[in-house]
Amino acid sequence: MTHKIAILGASGYTGAELVRLIATHPTMEISALAANSKAGQAMADVFPHLRHLDLPELVTIDEIDFAGIDLCFCALPHKTSQEVISALPKDLKIIDLSADFRLRDPSAYEKWYGNPHAATEMQKEAIYGLTEFYRNEIASARLVAGTGCNAATGQYILRPLIAAGVIDLDEIILDLKCGVSGAGRSLKENLLHAELSEGYHAYAVGGTHRHLGEFDQEFSAVAGREVKIQFTPHLIPANRGILATAYVKGDAQTVLDTLNAAYDDEPFVVVLPLGQTPSTRHVRGSNFCHIGVVADRLPGRVIVVAALDNLTKGSSGQALQNANLMLGEDETAGLMLAPVFP
Amino acid sequence: MTHKIAILGASGYTGAELVRLIATHPTMEISALAANSKAGQAMADVFPHLRHLDLPELVTIDEIDFAGIDLCFCALPHKTSQEVISALPKDLKIIDLSADFRLRDPSAYEKWYGNPHAATEMQKEAIYGLTEFYRNEIASARLVAGTGCNAATGQYILRPLIAAGVIDLDEIILDLKCGVSGAGRSLKENLLHAELSEGYHAYAVGGTHRHLGEFDQEFSAVAGREVKIQFTPHLIPANRGILATAYVKGDAQTVLDTLNAAYDDEPFVVVLPLGQTPSTRHVRGSNFCHIGVVADRLPGRVIVVAALDNLTKGSSGQALQNANLMLGEDETAGLMLAPVFP
Amino acid sequence: MTHKIAILGASGYTGAELVRLIATHPTMEISALAANSKAGQAMADVFPHLRHLDLPELVTIDEIDFAGIDLCFCALPHKTSQEVISALPKDLKIIDLSADFRLRDPSAYEKWYGNPHAATEMQKEAIYGLTEFYRNEIASARLVAGTGCNAATGQYILRPLIAAGVIDLDEIILDLKCGVSGAGRSLKENLLHAELSEGYHAYAVGGTHRHLGEFDQEFSAVAGREVKIQFTPHLIPANRGILATAYVKGDAQTVLDTLNAAYDDEPFVVVLPLGQTPSTRHVRGSNFCHIGVVADRLPGRVIVVAALDNLTKGSSGQALQNANLMLGEDETAGLMLAPVFP
Amino acid sequence: MTHKIAILGASGYTGAELVRLIATHPTMEISALAANSKAGQAMADVFPHLRHLDLPELVTIDEIDFAGIDLCFCALPHKTSQEVISALPKDLKIIDLSADFRLRDPSAYEKWYGNPHAATEMQKEAIYGLTEFYRNEIASARLVAGTGCNAATGQYILRPLIAAGVIDLDEIILDLKCGVSGAGRSLKENLLHAELSEGYHAYAVGGTHRHLGEFDQEFSAVAGREVKIQFTPHLIPANRGILATAYVKGDAQTVLDTLNAAYDDEPFVVVLPLGQTPSTRHVRGSNFCHIGVVADRLPGRVIVVAALDNLTKGSSGQALQNANLMLGEDETAGLMLAPVFP
Repeated sequence: MTHKIAILGASGYTGAELVRLIATHPTMEISALAANSKAGQAMADVFPHLRHLDLPELVTIDEIDFAGIDLCFCALPHKTSQEVISALPKDLKIIDLSADFRLRDPSAYEKWYGNPHAATEMQKEAIYGLTEFYRNEIASARLVAGTGCNAATGQYILRPLIAAGVIDLDEIILDLKCGVSGAGRSLKENLLHAELSEGYHAYAVGGTHRHLGEFDQEFSAVAGREVKIQFTPHLIPANRGILATAYVKGDAQTVLDTLNAAYDDEPFVVVLPLGQTPSTRHVRGSNFCHIGVVADRLPGRVIVVAALDNLTKGSSGQALQNANLMLGEDETAGLMLAPVFP
Repeated sequence: MTHKIAILGASGYTGAELVRLIATHPTMEISALAANSKAGQAMADVFPHLRHLDLPELVTIDEIDFAGIDLCFCALPHKTSQEVISALPKDLKIIDLSADFRLRDPSAYEKWYGNPHAATEMQKEAIYGLTEFYRNEIASARLVAGTGCNAATGQYILRPLIAAGVIDLDEIILDLKCGVSGAGRSLKENLLHAELSEGYHAYAVGGTHRHLGEFDQEFSAVAGREVKIQFTPHLIPANRGILATAYVKGDAQTVLDTLNAAYDDEPFVVVLPLGQTPSTRHVRGSNFCHIGVVADRLPGRVIVVAALDNLTKGSSGQALQNANLMLGEDETAGLMLAPVFP
Repeated sequence: MTHKIAILGASGYTGAELVRLIATHPTMEISALAANSKAGQAMADVFPHLRHLDLPELVTIDEIDFAGIDLCFCALPHKTSQEVISALPKDLKIIDLSADFRLRDPSAYEKWYGNPHAATEMQKEAIYGLTEFYRNEIASARLVAGTGCNAATGQYILRPLIAAGVIDLDEIILDLKCGVSGAGRSLKENLLHAELSEGYHAYAVGGTHRHLGEFDQEFSAVAGREVKIQFTPHLIPANRGILATAYVKGDAQTVLDTLNAAYDDEPFVVVLPLGQTPSTRHVRGSNFCHIGVVADRLPGRVIVVAALDNLTKGSSGQALQNANLMLGEDETAGLMLAPVFP
Repeated sequence: MTHKIAILGASGYTGAELVRLIATHPTMEISALAANSKAGQAMADVFPHLRHLDLPELVTIDEIDFAGIDLCFCALPHKTSQEVISALPKDLKIIDLSADFRLRDPSAYEKWYGNPHAATEMQKEAIYGLTEFYRNEIASARLVAGTGCNAATGQYILRPLIAAGVIDLDEIILDLKCGVSGAGRSLKENLLHAELSEGYHAYAVGGTHRHLGEFDQEFSAVAGREVKIQFTPHLIPANRGILATAYVKGDAQTVLDTLNAAYDDEPFVVVLPLGQTPSTRHVRGSNFCHIGVVADRLPGRVIVVAALDNLTKGSSGQALQNANLMLGEDETAGLMLAPVFP
């Protein structure tokens, strides 16, 4: 049986990544592609790398007949997303890749995103899309909120450790390095090649990055108490990849054992042997996340490093993994592509 | 039915690319991986991006029992390759990715590669592996010689035009820009990141690049007379990709029509509408080749540009396409992966 | 004696490059910096790499008192430039870095730039700023038109060869590879890091690039007959650099001798020994141009390759070289900075 | 008066960077360049970007007559350096850029570098070359040990804070991101462009990086007690640059005030306004170090970020700054080059 898929916001990078992945999915078929600003164009004109595929023309969202759609990916900007999704049929399965349904608390949403939420009822209904930790809820969900790509990476390191109580909850530092595509296809001076390549810098320093809203919500829920981490992202001149370096206090072997226990049966999360750490280049273009643990020379200090591809495991790959669950397919269908190196 | 595959020279980039592609091939299974210098190591240690795959350990070539192997890819350096292949079972299907069996004439081989050929009988037997033009011969071949990656790109532009006699055979210039991975994983100062990135240059200028041996052989055979082109490669600070810009004399529409006629039914070679030209970024990581034709402002001059990924369509993807033919599989099996962009 | 300098359009890359170079110039002082869109800001906020300099605040052009200015660089977009320069004091020495005064023929300007010229009188007065060939005229000029960066590179190769009549004037092909900064700091999707890095492509294929207007004008003047070349630029994922590969018909040694004769006494143009070719990485950040000559394997064919930094020798360095002449300074003052490698 | 300079190890990146900087130095002249492995070659062949300079040919160290040399830079690998320097004239002013004389304690040297020191007497004599903190000692020194590039960056952040006692000495984390050129011109697989570009990773994780020897020595001396920090470097796909992100406990305004007090009169260390952080791209190719301070959302936590160019301020620029002091020149002579951006 073939599932008919719609993608809203198909002219952005996460939209294109969904198309790339679905292109070799055994049971999904792309039935509609929407991008209001580029409606009427062929996808091959917007993304020539998808030229070989037989894809529907880009249309406006209004032009889509959702009656025939089995699942809809929504890859729109936040705020737009909640408006669009509110107007979609109430029985349509939806995976939202924006930030709009990640935070369950309307006031937390307003704090981090600056505007009141326009669909607070749906906010409550949405399931947080970190597959490995919400698998069952996702399988039966109607609306799944894809996580932030940085938020996913940090949680792969920290959730099991917080849940198991094996690290000091008040002394967690997450220094994160992310590639350029995480900022999307928007026209900003600081995203130009001439500005970005050959240099790197920290941004949103001091605890102002919006993905902290997700960290606060999820870590506090897992811990059963408030947990607030320090989180500093850095922009690196490479297109894909997130490398998160976590500084925690605990015992390295215990940290490793805890992560191994959490991910032993997971198809996409790989824990390396003690002392080894991952590289973004080795997960590039794939749905894998590699995690490594090292004991610091200072007793009781541990460094945990995780790497994933922000567009795949951090966004569109995660979304497809969730879609597989929601549609009753094998969770790994279409997602076993090996990383592209070099 | 599953075909058992061996890869000799698995610690290089073309070897790793073969593994990447075969990883999602429906009917191939990797049974042996050889790399004499790294025998005894796990493939995951040599190429951590392949860590998620269940692969055999690297062994020496001598350790492989070829009785159970259906097809062997040989991704060794030239000269080594002819020695190794000479000693393999005479009924083993082999695809050689080195330069050793591309040139049918022993003296041409010696001229371009500097050493006399050690297996001239096999040289005669080998089929030149440019799939689109040797499809039938490849399907029934025992030994196929993968083409040079630059040589493939130039031929996709020029073979049909030379065959059809629609361009001036004495006025062909091929200015080629290739990515870094084409030089392989060898330790050379000029391949260091600090040397290469942020700069670019021509090399092998003046008609000294070895792939000219292939151009001379193939174009002269197609034309039925000697054809010698000018060919200047340039090294570009990007890992994957070949962009070939051909300057020819003829009529642009006729050139386009000729290319369309040649590639209309081809699954991997895409001819763009008149006036459009391709980019390496839109074929990256895939087996596709995009070709575009533009009329110059000077009457009778035409520019044809082709783009492909040197490791995929230019090498390992081509090899897998040929393997599919040799094993009676669908030619596109395992090769419909969409390009990775951005 | 210190010369007081104004820069109009100081928020773009050529403006910033002028400031970088003038920072260590022994006899120039920056007295005014204008950027209408960023007036009121500190230069350190627009270009933090210039933070250590004691620079005037950005103002609008109207706010500048030109009475105290000895020389004005105009680094504005074309069309804007002619309007602004028309309104400047008639005795002010001006170097325009835009395209507005490069073409002496108003109809040629309109053909290549799409709008009628608004200051045709000044168009006639302006001296073409290719220092090595207009040195005397520049020294006594009031208005100098900086050349196109691609146009400069091509002319360093071809002008002496055309002037000496040592190549076939009807068979000149210039295949050019340029870095990203040549496109300026403008917000265009195709200039984003995620779009550009890791890939490359031809653009303005077929003889539509505007710098052909300069080639046509200059080469025809030098030859005393119409000369039209083929010219195809390619965009390369590096920030700085132009590499021009010229395919000409002639004798390699004669070509080399001609170039040596032309540039023997030039401080910034270096001709390499026969058979060597240059790299953009070796002129990066400097005012040097390296040129190499190679005989092709085909008799009578020669390849000449030139490399320079588009922002320095191709634009702001050239402008400063011209300013030195116009102000009676040593032509090399402030320009002997060594290239930055790696 | 012109100072005659010798550079030993002129075929590496720090050697080339010294030549680049000295090229525009008003009172230094390069009299001898040694590189044993490339003796007999012209510097222009080893580093074509220095082609325009009139430089002596590369010789072996033995060939140099040190009688006429005023100051000698030694840019050799560690261990080789101590052997070579031991044999140089005892009254020759020397700046060593290797690690050999950074650690004053022979056992600390052996611990971090794995071999016993062969010139322990000179080890005691050598002055640690962090100009801003050893200015007077350097001015009268005969032998100065250039600091590690990472060690310099970390100390610019932490030395004043430790000295002033404004941060918790037991809770210092330094997460550092460095460019590729820091690893030198050595032939290692992991330094190839195809391996490095487009990806990034942590290395020497857990407190094993040798520059920790410097941190331990200097911070403990400054504090008057043992201070051991956590330090994790990451390799970033850019050629130049170090970005250090320090996580400390204290008060942000106090931290800022302390840094401002320390660097107010320094020509090369720039402290940004509270809340701003630096980028490596804005110090590239220059001798400047930019430092920024941000208060974290968690009370009592502060993030301090520093950026410098590892080859300039982190190594050869620092060395030249020290040479100026040792020779009685203006400390900034030859070092006021503006950063190169883009």
